[in-house]
Amino acid sequence: MVKFVGVDAMVQLVDRIGIQPFLRGLCGTIESDFRRWQAFEKTPRIASHSKVGVIELMPTSDGEHYGFKYVNGHPKNTREGLQTVTAFGVLSDVATGYPLLVSEMTLLTALRTAATSAMAALHLARPESRCMAIIGNGAQSEFQALAFAAINGITHLRLHDIDPEASKKCARNLAGYGLEIALCSSAHEAVAGADIITTVTADKQYATILTDNMVGAGVHINAIGGDCPGKTELHRDILLRSDIYVEFEEQTRIEGEIQQLDHDHRVTELWKVISGVDAGRQSSGTITLFDSVGFAIEDFSALAFLREQALSHGIYMELDLIADLSDPRDLFGMLKADDGPDGQVQQTPAAA
Amino acid sequence: MVKFVGVDAMVQLVDRIGIQPFLRGLCGTIESDFRRWQAFEKTPRIASHSKVGVIELMPTSDGEHYGFKYVNGHPKNTREGLQTVTAFGVLSDVATGYPLLVSEMTLLTALRTAATSAMAALHLARPESRCMAIIGNGAQSEFQALAFAAINGITHLRLHDIDPEASKKCARNLAGYGLEIALCSSAHEAVAGADIITTVTADKQYATILTDNMVGAGVHINAIGGDCPGKTELHRDILLRSDIYVEFEEQTRIEGEIQQLDHDHRVTELWKVISGVDAGRQSSGTITLFDSVGFAIEDFSALAFLREQALSHGIYMELDLIADLSDPRDLFGMLKADDGPDGQVQQTPAAA
Repeated sequence: MVKFVGVDAMVQLVDRIGIQPFLRGLCGTIESDFRRWQAFEKTPRIASHSKVGVIELMPTSDGEHYGFKYVNGHPKNTREGLQTVTAFGVLSDVATGYPLLVSEMTLLTALRTAATSAMAALHLARPESRCMAIIGNGAQSEFQALAFAAINGITHLRLHDIDPEASKKCARNLAGYGLEIALCSSAHEAVAGADIITTVTADKQYATILTDNMVGAGVHINAIGGDCPGKTELHRDILLRSDIYVEFEEQTRIEGEIQQLDHDHRVTELWKVISGVDAGRQSSGTITLFDSVGFAIEDFSALAFLREQALSHGIYMELDLIADLSDPRDLFGMLKADDGPDGQVQQTPAAA
Repeated sequence: MVKFVGVDAMVQLVDRIGIQPFLRGLCGTIESDFRRWQAFEKTPRIASHSKVGVIELMPTSDGEHYGFKYVNGHPKNTREGLQTVTAFGVLSDVATGYPLLVSEMTLLTALRTAATSAMAALHLARPESRCMAIIGNGAQSEFQALAFAAINGITHLRLHDIDPEASKKCARNLAGYGLEIALCSSAHEAVAGADIITTVTADKQYATILTDNMVGAGVHINAIGGDCPGKTELHRDILLRSDIYVEFEEQTRIEGEIQQLDHDHRVTELWKVISGVDAGRQSSGTITLFDSVGFAIEDFSALAFLREQALSHGIYMELDLIADLSDPRDLFGMLKADDGPDGQVQQTPAAA
């Protein structure tokens, strides 16, 4: 039997563990996987494009486990009351090829994205950072806020969105987590005094959420929203002033903020900082930029962490996804095995 | 909610429909998809190799639906009482990117492989063919036998396996389907008088199941077992005497019997015959060879046929694989939505 964590189970599990302990645990798993970066197979995403969107498979393996995520991107979905991005994933045993876990990954991706951002900031932001601006207060914003509060000691949030309702929704969802929250009417206002600036807007175009004069010395920029060709958030001049860190250079060159730069502009892969190969932040005045696009290894870490948690809390279902044969040469025998004494198959009703 | 057809549901569905009507229906779907071959996206499989096996993803799309199969190949699994090959698949809606169906595909692959073989023979074998030899009587053999009986009018079977117990198992499973079955102590004996020869052995090496002198004029060879690099079943001389038909040339050059031939040796893609572009069998004396390795479009057809049948018979389960948000910008809100009046999440127990 294959374990299944659906949306309900995921919600239960996060509730049982607590979202901030969940984010901290997940951050630890991602960090230890980044530390052994070389052990992973890096395959480019396999994309199937249509006029209205894209469906992608993102596989990776560390030689012990194999994981992949299915994810779509359909900007027009929102107009139909559907989500732009949905995702699910599978974790398998490399030794047998058998799948171990099937999981929803819409929520899990939001959690891993936030945990990855916080992990990057732990190594790149000034340690005394307490105030974060979040520009773009949509689906990912609360996850970012809670990860930075739990992992980086952020106590003050400055929220801005072109839709003030989005900021209010974000602030409402964050009530009770002990964060001091300011609603800001402009991006300019939001970044005032922020040690960390998180940009996580949704516009699928070249946008300029931050201009050069908005970014002071020592700031860490956590750029989440620019994550596919043609979609960026930062003015090019900011990139030229920053030390830039990426997940997987080959992918970020195409999808990240750095698609605005020459292809040989110097960037550093984050795993080098995590594993001590690169020193990370040079001085308290350096502007550091994490140009995040999301990489398969983070999904792998998330599935591995989830599996551990789901098993230890007993929150999952079992799926008969894989035929369990007493004699592997007698697959056909399965079609007869369910015959009851009266020659009828035993009915298990289709669930509602 | 996403529909789920597990192993139990698949067994029930085949029992409800009857395996031979199921194979006929599936054959019809595959045939109509081969007829519109050009509409499909053809992506090579994405393989992740380890020392003990391989895990592959096989995606395709016709612009309306997107499908992929996960399949592993671990020859050593048999020694551990596990299956060499297991599989599952997903069918999605291209317009929204949402998955529609998750299904077991171990049984379904066996069914689609047999249906594809029968479809090829319908266009390539002599129409008066009534007698088929099956060399290799393992997991796939009964499916082949029943497909050829249902679709091609085969009435006589001649079974051979290096393990006589396998042949007995196959004959036992086929009892009651009205087939005249002969157990043969050698491949030579099995092919005597056969109009169609199906080779479906499991040895992962260059083997010679058929030698040149065993194949007479007019025979159709349905070569199933040679399906990956380094694994073939036919002597090269047979290939030189045959008109060779393949699924997708690019893939079969690497995986099929024709890996033994020069890379420019003439082969014909089967869809051309199905759609009338190629005439198929030249004369009653021609030796035709279907060098089958299995292709993503067949899996796509199988998932599409299965979805139709599962829905019409109401045999499936529902999975909450995809988060269903009232407000797509409020993903975080989901984590609170399940709070009951007393602030506790509503428990749904982990199924046994």
